[in-house]
Amino acid sequence: MPVFITLEGTEGVGKSTALTYIQGYLAQHQVPFVTTREPGGTPLAEKIRTLLLTKDAEPMSSTAELLLMFAARAQHLAQVIQPALASGQWVLCDRFTDATYAYQGGGRGLRQADIGLLETLVQGELRPTLTLWLDAPVELGLSRAAARQQLDRFEQEKAVFFDKVRAVYQQRAEAEPKRYRRIDASLSIEEVQDQIHAVLARFLSVRTL
Amino acid sequence: MPVFITLEGTEGVGKSTALTYIQGYLAQHQVPFVTTREPGGTPLAEKIRTLLLTKDAEPMSSTAELLLMFAARAQHLAQVIQPALASGQWVLCDRFTDATYAYQGGGRGLRQADIGLLETLVQGELRPTLTLWLDAPVELGLSRAAARQQLDRFEQEKAVFFDKVRAVYQQRAEAEPKRYRRIDASLSIEEVQDQIHAVLARFLSVRTL
Repeated sequence: MPVFITLEGTEGVGKSTALTYIQGYLAQHQVPFVTTREPGGTPLAEKIRTLLLTKDAEPMSSTAELLLMFAARAQHLAQVIQPALASGQWVLCDRFTDATYAYQGGGRGLRQADIGLLETLVQGELRPTLTLWLDAPVELGLSRAAARQQLDRFEQEKAVFFDKVRAVYQQRAEAEPKRYRRIDASLSIEEVQDQIHAVLARFLSVRTL
Repeated sequence: MPVFITLEGTEGVGKSTALTYIQGYLAQHQVPFVTTREPGGTPLAEKIRTLLLTKDAEPMSSTAELLLMFAARAQHLAQVIQPALASGQWVLCDRFTDATYAYQGGGRGLRQADIGLLETLVQGELRPTLTLWLDAPVELGLSRAAARQQLDRFEQEKAVFFDKVRAVYQQRAEAEPKRYRRIDASLSIEEVQDQIHAVLARFLSVRTL
């Protein structure tokens, strides 16, 4: 059965480091997998990503932002995710639709019901099998992200925006405890990796029973 | 009351010439108006247009195409159409959501109900006041369009695609006779302009009664 793992979290929680760790873990356990990201993952979807992340003189309508996210997702699903899952590979994706609920729903205040309509339109029944949510206090993440050279259009948002984003991740984690695993990302890299290791080890052992 | 006029039709039916004629007519009658087009009409929406019209090695998913159309539309509405209508200007738009029903619904075979959901999500209650549909046999339009230098991703479609596009325009014109005016675009430029003149003259006289 195909496995679709997604990694979620706000800015500066250490997603890249966690992604590399998960890739190493899956490779070590001979799991065939592809790593990808959203928005993006195909040449066209990456062009849409550039539109989404570039801060421009023209303010972007929140609804346009939402639809661009799902346009990129539809292309990504058709070109990468669905073919990989159909061929038996696992898919490891840096952000997916939970991020849309959190950023466009929570952060921008768009209606969760509208996001749900688009989710069904674009994904049908497909949902992630397992979601690792890297969670840390917003201020901690932002102070880490601020150390980077250039902030994109989302990273330039203020703490109040990310508070709302985090609150939606929290709600979704509580609503779907079987799929969501909260990782405390305020700890050291080693402690974060220990938590991820525990989740993956348990996930793999249950699947191979 | 704000007036929103849209111009619709398949390739090669003479939309550009008709648009210029309508602009002249409105100017002559001291109607304040803005002219715009879809997909496009703002810098961001024009970038989305480029993605939509450019034929690339990567095939575009029909759902991604549909969502890009509505993303561009959301931006166009927020930045151009709604502000113009709110300020009392008329809006003259080269293609709008009828084209999405015709091209993505008819041509690509996407569900009309899904397009309806997106229409409501993006436009709320806003619909065109008057739609001029330039209609001509598909083969005639394609032979005219073929004389152009470069064909975009849609213009490269075959006659069977445009037959389906035209059929949806026909259905929609029949379903909404008060809004839609069919213009026989197979006639000479002068005869086409006579028809447009008659429609606009009647529209203006009714509105100023």
